[in-house]
Amino acid sequence: MMKNSYDIDLKGRNYGDLIFETEYWTIFLAPNQSNIGTCVIVLKRRCGTLKGLKGEEWLDFGKIVKKLECSLESAFKPVMFNWGALMNADYLVENPDPHMHWHLIPRYKEKIQFQGLIFEDRYFGSMEPRPIKIREVPENVREKIIEKIRENIKGTDSTI
Amino acid sequence: MMKNSYDIDLKGRNYGDLIFETEYWTIFLAPNQSNIGTCVIVLKRRCGTLKGLKGEEWLDFGKIVKKLECSLESAFKPVMFNWGALMNADYLVENPDPHMHWHLIPRYKEKIQFQGLIFEDRYFGSMEPRPIKIREVPENVREKIIEKIRENIKGTDSTI
Repeated sequence: MMKNSYDIDLKGRNYGDLIFETEYWTIFLAPNQSNIGTCVIVLKRRCGTLKGLKGEEWLDFGKIVKKLECSLESAFKPVMFNWGALMNADYLVENPDPHMHWHLIPRYKEKIQFQGLIFEDRYFGSMEPRPIKIREVPENVREKIIEKIRENIKGTDSTI
Repeated sequence: MMKNSYDIDLKGRNYGDLIFETEYWTIFLAPNQSNIGTCVIVLKRRCGTLKGLKGEEWLDFGKIVKKLECSLESAFKPVMFNWGALMNADYLVENPDPHMHWHLIPRYKEKIQFQGLIFEDRYFGSMEPRPIKIREVPENVREKIIEKIRENIKGTDSTI
């Protein structure tokens, strides 16, 4: 896995495995792959609120949105995507130290088969019961998912 | 209520009551006020995906985020905010015609009393069970909530 740069302490924050990074954000394959291709997009700079984002960080994020949606559409054919900046879990500890990150969950109407595994989005059209039931997949499958996302990012037009 | 301009058909889409509008977005007080101050931010232009947003729409949205978070913090003292672009419901109909909108849900650790009503965020720190249980409030209370948000927007620095 590639290394990446942070000025925040990622200890205790399991965002997943690195896919790629931009000037302001790092993109991970989320630990929970109940919907294949689920990603977490993490701000490199220390910042705990959405209102704290700067113009250039918003623009960079907009380009990532375009890149990831296009890449995932080619790779796994989801019908649509859920995007969220919730940060609820960051507030469940005694001394909250929230850090700005986005969840990207591709949503599927049909079952997907990948590397011999079946991925099924049972609650297409609603938010439940994600992220209650975490589905981890073996490391070699995670690597293949990342590879497929990266391949499909190549040549993507990220102009916004 | 102020009038506002659209080039999309809002028939069958109940985003709530108008709070204010910008060049690219319209901000509504959501029909569901189970968490007081919950808003919906709707793109004026016809567009069904997040990847379709243009640079200037992202920047305008970033400024709205700052304005709304600051205003709601002054008005109702939430601890934090959930932001989401889900659009699940748009895909539950036979011929989906999704339209780009954001949900903003302020989250509260303590009960809030406003206009004689009690608002309690029972699931602070998690996503359940919103938006399952819809809480409608009387029109005069909705007007007071909107008034309070507008008052607190005045003088807000929306530089990003």
